[in-house]
Parts: sequence; C-alpha cells; structure tokens
Amino acid sequence: MQSKLKFNKIAIIGLGLIGSSIALAIKKHKIAKSVSGYAKSLKTRQIAKKIKLASKVESSLEAAVKNADLIIICTPLSSYKKIFKSIKLHLKDGVIITDVGSAKTKSMQEAQSILGDKIEFIPAHPIAGTEKSGPESGFAELFINRWCIITPFNISKKKNVNLIKKLWEKLGSSVEIMTPQHHDRVLAITSHLPHLIAYNIVNTAADLETVTKSDVIKYSASGFRDFTRIASSDPTMWRDIFISNKEAVLEMIGRFSEDLSVLQKAVRWNDEDTLFKIFSETRKIRKKIIAAGQDIDADDFGRVKKNLK
Amino acid sequence: MQSKLKFNKIAIIGLGLIGSSIALAIKKHKIAKSVSGYAKSLKTRQIAKKIKLASKVESSLEAAVKNADLIIICTPLSSYKKIFKSIKLHLKDGVIITDVGSAKTKSMQEAQSILGDKIEFIPAHPIAGTEKSGPESGFAELFINRWCIITPFNISKKKNVNLIKKLWEKLGSSVEIMTPQHHDRVLAITSHLPHLIAYNIVNTAADLETVTKSDVIKYSASGFRDFTRIASSDPTMWRDIFISNKEAVLEMIGRFSEDLSVLQKAVRWNDEDTLFKIFSETRKIRKKIIAAGQDIDADDFGRVKKNLK
Repeated sequence: MQSKLKFNKIAIIGLGLIGSSIALAIKKHKIAKSVSGYAKSLKTRQIAKKIKLASKVESSLEAAVKNADLIIICTPLSSYKKIFKSIKLHLKDGVIITDVGSAKTKSMQEAQSILGDKIEFIPAHPIAGTEKSGPESGFAELFINRWCIITPFNISKKKNVNLIKKLWEKLGSSVEIMTPQHHDRVLAITSHLPHLIAYNIVNTAADLETVTKSDVIKYSASGFRDFTRIASSDPTMWRDIFISNKEAVLEMIGRFSEDLSVLQKAVRWNDEDTLFKIFSETRKIRKKIIAAGQDIDADDFGRVKKNLK
Repeated sequence: MQSKLKFNKIAIIGLGLIGSSIALAIKKHKIAKSVSGYAKSLKTRQIAKKIKLASKVESSLEAAVKNADLIIICTPLSSYKKIFKSIKLHLKDGVIITDVGSAKTKSMQEAQSILGDKIEFIPAHPIAGTEKSGPESGFAELFINRWCIITPFNISKKKNVNLIKKLWEKLGSSVEIMTPQHHDRVLAITSHLPHLIAYNIVNTAADLETVTKSDVIKYSASGFRDFTRIASSDPTMWRDIFISNKEAVLEMIGRFSEDLSVLQKAVRWNDEDTLFKIFSETRKIRKKIIAAGQDIDADDFGRVKKNLK
C-alpha cells in the first residue's frame, strides 16, 4: 500500500500519554503527510493545538477519520464501542484501524461485531508508558527499546499486519505477534495484577487510622513509595482494563491470594524455612529481568544517589 | 561522654549493606579513633579486610566488642539473642549498644531480658537501604537525607539517646524518636507489608504454568519489574523481620486482604464507580510523597530515558 512506510493521513483518536507520544514520533519520523488528532475534552484539544501535536486537532470523530488510511485508537477501552459506531460510516476504503489497548479479547469481539469482517482492525499493544497522563506527558522516544505486541485476527491480511509491525519498529519497538488470549493472560500477570495490587496497598495504607497519613508519607522510602508510582496511573484507563480483562484478572487475584495465605501462615507459625525459600527464589527473577535488559541494575532504581543533591 | 562526637572504639557487628555503609561513613567523618568489624562468614571478613571497612576485622564477637564504647548491631534480627549472650560479659563500663533493625518491640524485650537494666541499649532504625546485600554494596552516603527512628526505653539515659541522635545526624539523617510499638506499626505498613506483597506477587508470577517465565521477564516493564526490586532484598533479613514483627504484619495482611476483596468484587460486578474512586484517591498519595521529598518525580523513576542508550 505504502512504500517506505508513508501514509497520506493518520488519525490519532485520543491524545493522552500514548496518543501524544505516537503523534510526536510520527512527526519526528515523517511517517505521514498529515496527522489529525481527536480528543473528547476541550482542554486536551487546546493543549494539543498549543504544543502542535498534530497537523489538525479535531473535535469531531468523523472529521478526524475522514480520508485517513490509518486510524490509531488511543482512548480508554470503554470508549471503543462508541468510537467504532461513530466512525463506521466515515471510513476510507482500505483503511487500517489499530489501537494501543492493554486488553485484547473483549475489544476485538466488539470491533468484529460492530465493524464486521471487511474493515481491517489490527490490534496492537505497546508495552510502554509512564505513570503520567495527558497530552503534555508524551514524548517521541517512549517506545524505543520496548516491546509491542500485535494480536491479529485469523482473517487479518498479512500485508496489513506487516505494515503495523513496521510502524512500531520505526517507532523503536521490537514486535511480537501472539493470540489475544495469550496476550491477555501474559498482561494479566505482568501488568494488570501488579497495578491492582499497587492500587490496593496504597488504599490500605491510606485507610489506616492508627498510623497517620503523614507517617505513611514520611517513611515511604522504606518500600511503600515504589507502589505509589504505578498506583498513580490513569484511573479511567485502569478501571477499563480490569473490567475488560476481567476473567484473567480474577484468576490472577485468586492465585495471588492463595500464595499470600501461604506466606501469612508461614509468618504466623514461624515457618522460617518456607519464608527463606520463597524469598530466595524471587531474588533470582530480578536477576533475569536485568539480564534481559528489562530493568536497570542501579541501586534503588538509581534514586539513592539522586537523594544526595 | 565524648565531646565533638568522638568515640575511642566503635564495634560494628555485621558487615552487610548497612554495617558496611556505617563503617564507611564513620571513617569518612572521623567519628572514632578505631573501628572493629565483626562478621560471621569468612568470605565477608575477607572482603571487609580487602576494601578496608574497619581498622580491624574480627572473627570473634568478644574481641570485636572489647573496650568498645559504642557497639552497633547490624545483623539479622534472629541473631540478636545469641549476640547479647556472647558479648554480655565482655562489655566496657558505660558502653552504649545500638542497632539498625527494622522491628523493635521483640528485640528490645530480648535485650532487656538478657542484658538487664544496667547496660544501655538504645535501638535505632535508619530508613535507608537498597535491594543489594553484602559488604561491597555499602557506601558512606546511604543515610544522607533519610530518616532514622530511635525507640528508647523509658529508662534510657537522655544523654545517651542524644549521642545516638547526634551520630545519625552526623551520618546525614534526620532523627525521629518514637515508641517501639508505634515504630512497628508504621513500618509494618510502609515497609514490611510492601515487601511481603512484592515477594508474593513475584512468587505468583514465577509459578504460573500457562504463561512462561520468559514471558513474565520479557514483558516485566509493564508493571511487574517494579515489584522485583524489593523482592530481591536479603532473604534472611526479611524472614526475620516478618517473624519479629509478626503481630503488626499479620494485622496489615488482614487489612490488605479485606481491601483486595472489595476490589475483586468490583471487578467481577463491573462496579466502575468503586474502581474509579479508589484509583483516584491513591493517585493523590503519590503527589504528597513527592511533595515531601520522599521520591523523585521523574517519569518511571527516571528509567524511561535510561532505556534510550
């Protein structure tokens, strides 16, 4: 369709952290002749215009997708149905629709039931982000050296899947292709459960009436602060992820709770061997993550030395 | 006792991350005429000698504490009883014993029952550390801009409490004084529960048979890797902390589990309002931690930009 990965018009629906980062990266790499950006909120559109995220910032979905040959949906999962319905009759022939959502199975069912088999929806999920939200938090380098997972339909055209693959490679990512079911299980354990647990522990600490909130904040460097980072991620986005990937998330909560009961019992009964064994095994996983280049080896994520200023 | 905070001899019992950092800081600030270091393991002693952590590295507790006017215990909590018994008859008159343990109530009872009322044990807990262990992981600046909590006995001599306070201030920390009971509750929620939860989630992920370990490692940047850092902390030290502070830890696990059940139910029943409300509240806590100077505001702990190399 396009040689040298050049699109005439790319529409980016949603201009939060991921949408704005994609917009900036597309601009940087000159991947499209024009980029239209859509955001529901006036404030987001105003910021997007001010920082020149797109050639044109639209307040109507229909205008944004008109004549686009690539549409990238970067909004919370609960908005997909409405978006599919709104754009369905305004699509250019041969358009490819993709997304960046953190859960795949349910949104792919929605896409298929609304858009049908003839419109190409090639779902993608860049494993990248920060705890920040909004159009001003994006940056073009966000996807460099990160993974992006594509979960095509069985009927997806191979050349279109390849095009999305090339797009993400151009943005700096390595691409893996897998089924939506496998994606949703992998992400449930690597991303969704950790976020739910982080939200939960911060919530537990905030509710503790005999220990003041100021104590919790003051002594947070002893472990707690690590959890507050991911527990400050976008509430709407995460509400939608848990509900969209409900089945896998509930399974992981079940497994986590079982394991926690084992630890709880070991603490209660002074079962030193069980505690030591589990704590030694977990240490090995960190080493593997660092060896795989998925985290830095600096003490305390490199923060300790930053405290010295 | 000492003018200008100068000791004749300081004995450091245990030369791991904290003991070695204290040794280096004492040397840097010239707080003692001589420092003796004790370590149980031959390997630790060899490294300690090689990197000159102390004036003298001893293989006998008795030799290490002989003539010392300050003894700092930096070993796992389960070793305290044995140490108290071994050193009791070898102490200089007027010696002050202190420690760096993460749980206070139980170890203070042990000290009192073994050492009696006449020997001054002034417990302390520097809220500082990294996920690394061993004598080579220490550095003199570890305690700068961190908190140190002192939990004196009712009968502790005020001038001795002040001396320990001055020592930690000299090492760069701000000092708070509180009861051991309050300390143990505050640390149970800010440190002990977060570590237990981190160990647990890493353990759950490692056990997942339908998602391979390599998937878990590969996609760990989506949230999971944050937990692996504190789950790679020293297994012996943490085994002892959970057992020593059992009562408060079990209470916090109970509260955490209750709160997790609420979230679990909200996910199951698509209770969007509950999820959104909890996730919005937790976000505020992070802002307060950053405002209090207890964490950095850099995206993703500043790691994102480090990936670009």
